[in-house]
Amino acid sequence: MDTRHWLELLPLPADVPAYLALARAIRGLAMDGRVGAGARLPSERTLAAALGVSRTTVTRAYGELVASGWARARQGSGTTIALPSGERAPSLPLIPGLRTDAIDLSAAAGLAPAGTEAIIRSSLDWLPATLNSAGYEPFGAPHLRRRIADWYSARGLVTDPGQVVVTAGAMTAVSVAMHALLNPGDRIVVDSPTYPGAIGAIEVVRARAVSVPLVAGWDLAGWGEALRRSKARAAYLIPDFHNPTGLLMPQAQREDLAGLLGQHNCVPVVDETLAELNLAGSAMPAPFAALDPRAVSIGSLSKVLWGGIRIGWLRCPPALLDAVRTRAVQLGLGASALDQLVATSYFEDPAPVREEVVRRLDTACDRWLQALAVRLPSWQVARPDGGLALWVELPRRASSELALAAAAHRLVLAPGPRFSADRTHANRLRLPLTLPPEVIEEAVERLAATWDDVLRGVPAVGRGESLAL
Amino acid sequence: MDTRHWLELLPLPADVPAYLALARAIRGLAMDGRVGAGARLPSERTLAAALGVSRTTVTRAYGELVASGWARARQGSGTTIALPSGERAPSLPLIPGLRTDAIDLSAAAGLAPAGTEAIIRSSLDWLPATLNSAGYEPFGAPHLRRRIADWYSARGLVTDPGQVVVTAGAMTAVSVAMHALLNPGDRIVVDSPTYPGAIGAIEVVRARAVSVPLVAGWDLAGWGEALRRSKARAAYLIPDFHNPTGLLMPQAQREDLAGLLGQHNCVPVVDETLAELNLAGSAMPAPFAALDPRAVSIGSLSKVLWGGIRIGWLRCPPALLDAVRTRAVQLGLGASALDQLVATSYFEDPAPVREEVVRRLDTACDRWLQALAVRLPSWQVARPDGGLALWVELPRRASSELALAAAAHRLVLAPGPRFSADRTHANRLRLPLTLPPEVIEEAVERLAATWDDVLRGVPAVGRGESLAL
Repeated sequence: MDTRHWLELLPLPADVPAYLALARAIRGLAMDGRVGAGARLPSERTLAAALGVSRTTVTRAYGELVASGWARARQGSGTTIALPSGERAPSLPLIPGLRTDAIDLSAAAGLAPAGTEAIIRSSLDWLPATLNSAGYEPFGAPHLRRRIADWYSARGLVTDPGQVVVTAGAMTAVSVAMHALLNPGDRIVVDSPTYPGAIGAIEVVRARAVSVPLVAGWDLAGWGEALRRSKARAAYLIPDFHNPTGLLMPQAQREDLAGLLGQHNCVPVVDETLAELNLAGSAMPAPFAALDPRAVSIGSLSKVLWGGIRIGWLRCPPALLDAVRTRAVQLGLGASALDQLVATSYFEDPAPVREEVVRRLDTACDRWLQALAVRLPSWQVARPDGGLALWVELPRRASSELALAAAAHRLVLAPGPRFSADRTHANRLRLPLTLPPEVIEEAVERLAATWDDVLRGVPAVGRGESLAL
Repeated sequence: MDTRHWLELLPLPADVPAYLALARAIRGLAMDGRVGAGARLPSERTLAAALGVSRTTVTRAYGELVASGWARARQGSGTTIALPSGERAPSLPLIPGLRTDAIDLSAAAGLAPAGTEAIIRSSLDWLPATLNSAGYEPFGAPHLRRRIADWYSARGLVTDPGQVVVTAGAMTAVSVAMHALLNPGDRIVVDSPTYPGAIGAIEVVRARAVSVPLVAGWDLAGWGEALRRSKARAAYLIPDFHNPTGLLMPQAQREDLAGLLGQHNCVPVVDETLAELNLAGSAMPAPFAALDPRAVSIGSLSKVLWGGIRIGWLRCPPALLDAVRTRAVQLGLGASALDQLVATSYFEDPAPVREEVVRRLDTACDRWLQALAVRLPSWQVARPDGGLALWVELPRRASSELALAAAAHRLVLAPGPRFSADRTHANRLRLPLTLPPEVIEEAVERLAATWDDVLRGVPAVGRGESLAL
């Protein structure tokens, strides 16, 4: 555990008892991901000395965290961070006993588009033939791999089905790529901000993320410097409607970046899971691997179809195929046979579903921007080129405070630091375009009320207060 | 790469040119898993010196391997092992251009039982409600977790749904457990033989497997010694119809083993994926975690229903739940929503499907044993207590030779060394009870013909011969 985190707890606000202020500050670190579930808290004595508070204050603060479910105390092994809910991923904010009328803005995942049921039912025409097999296709069924290869070829990147490895969703594909490319201690260059799942996948292989800030666009001088300094073996990129900023990397930058990566012998892992969610009608460049044939490309149906269909894939250069396949079967034996049928059925005529999804995101984008302009005019937000989210800039570095205060207003938020390996972006908040449009005004009302609390210094809720909604 | 492997190449048979003998011997190492895809071959000079052959012999042998697809040569990085097929998992034997009339005895996975289609179709009654959600359930849908918890409780192990984490198949569950419990360099005790997928999952986290031989049953003195000597943090067990031996661990041994594990503070990962495949009608003990509450239990529907439904799970003690959940979401975002509906539908009335599967395995077992007794009486094989396989003992340590020679007879075999981390069991062969019964006599004819070739010293096929069937 990096001791710097604990110094970030200072200064403790003076408007509540010190133990409560300390407990809330630690909870804030857990909530925005700076310390993870299972992380060990310093001994009471160590932390008291580091922060210059009494040991009793630390003891009571730890007691508060344990009582509210945010920490566990174990005989002989000290106190460790816990995440209180039984139902949610540790990468998302966890609110104990979340009320069902809460609005969750932390995930960018929508309901299935209207055409999904018909696609699923028509895919069952192939069921009898599929049931007459062992069902295992560790690298993907040939019918689906051919469709995926054709999809790349049609976008200007000639692809053989043998280059495609299908996985149970894009998160698994990202993890397979990290396991195939990185050894413990290796460095990998990432944008800051970036997709939190990629940060987790880098952590699991014990590699180290080197962050390059991405503000209004990619900073290629920064990339060049990071590549030169870090000698990274790999990079993780989202050039097509970057998560969370929604930016599309211009063609000229792609060419320059491909050149830099080649020059530094750094293999790009290119996450193209959002490439179909083109909101601004931009002309789409060819997939990144058309510029850099060493790239591993990652795609998925979860964003353009539905998250319940767990189909992701990697498109590999031949030199990496053995390594990727070896890791893929060590992490799982492939995707659901049913989901693969659904995916093939989807690819027969993807346009109607894609158009419905893009229309829905576009409508949501309009309503968000209108409501935010009226109720929270001090928040800056640009219309994204594409993707699933708005990347809002707050007028102060209060994203984690906002996320903590949100529970009292029945909101779940994803604070900015969750989206970067270096835990910066404390002035940012990601809002999902996937929220059903009819809920958006209500969500903005609650955001405005929460922001009001933050501005007026209303302390975030504690145990026995509205955290346990 | 462990240099010991290369010395295992000696002595080279003298009945073919030395380069061909060397190429075949290296291919044998790749085929039975002693060297994996991507492993680097020694430099030609090093290997020539180690084996006492000319450098020209090694050069020609490597050329032969490259030409037949079993190795790749790359500028500046030497020659690496490759696996020639585009379609199969690297953990399975790979035959380039395998003829479709080949019989694959390397995997123990059957066709879907007759009731599967009805279960799938009836599960779609819940589809509209499911589509009206984001589809992501990173730890499993509540409906399924409740069923799985009830299944444990009914078997004598009281379980809360919150303890269950659903994954996209049991292989992913095994990988999640290894990632949650082991750090690089840690030791884990395993049986020899054991499930090859577990060996792969141990390898991916860079832990070290400590093998305890399992012959006619578990050797608890051996386990005690391995635990004491290795200070292993974890153990991997298959007490219910062990893969590949089919043994059921007696209750008294379970109690003793649980005691030993507790005494050495070693957490058991208990693979119970075969527990429902009771062929001998044995009385089933409660799940192992009823004896050792520190155990992580792993289950799956792939064996008792169908491999195309990718549903596995972990049942965790509360102390490990945070770590398991963290690793689970770093390796994937959960199982298919459709497969989870199918699984819940299956659990409504599992008996008919299970009885059909067990009946089919039983019939296959009879036919295997009869045909083997007639055509290969020198092979020893016991009727298994349960599970999916026969663990055949050959009268000599010729399992890998047999697997190599099998291609000429349109057979794919899983040689014994593939089933152990220490690559022993060269006198063993696993045969699948999942083979459709009507094919078994033909499979035994081909096995007998292959065995004949091995006895007569017919060399395994090389490039341009029948390997490229």
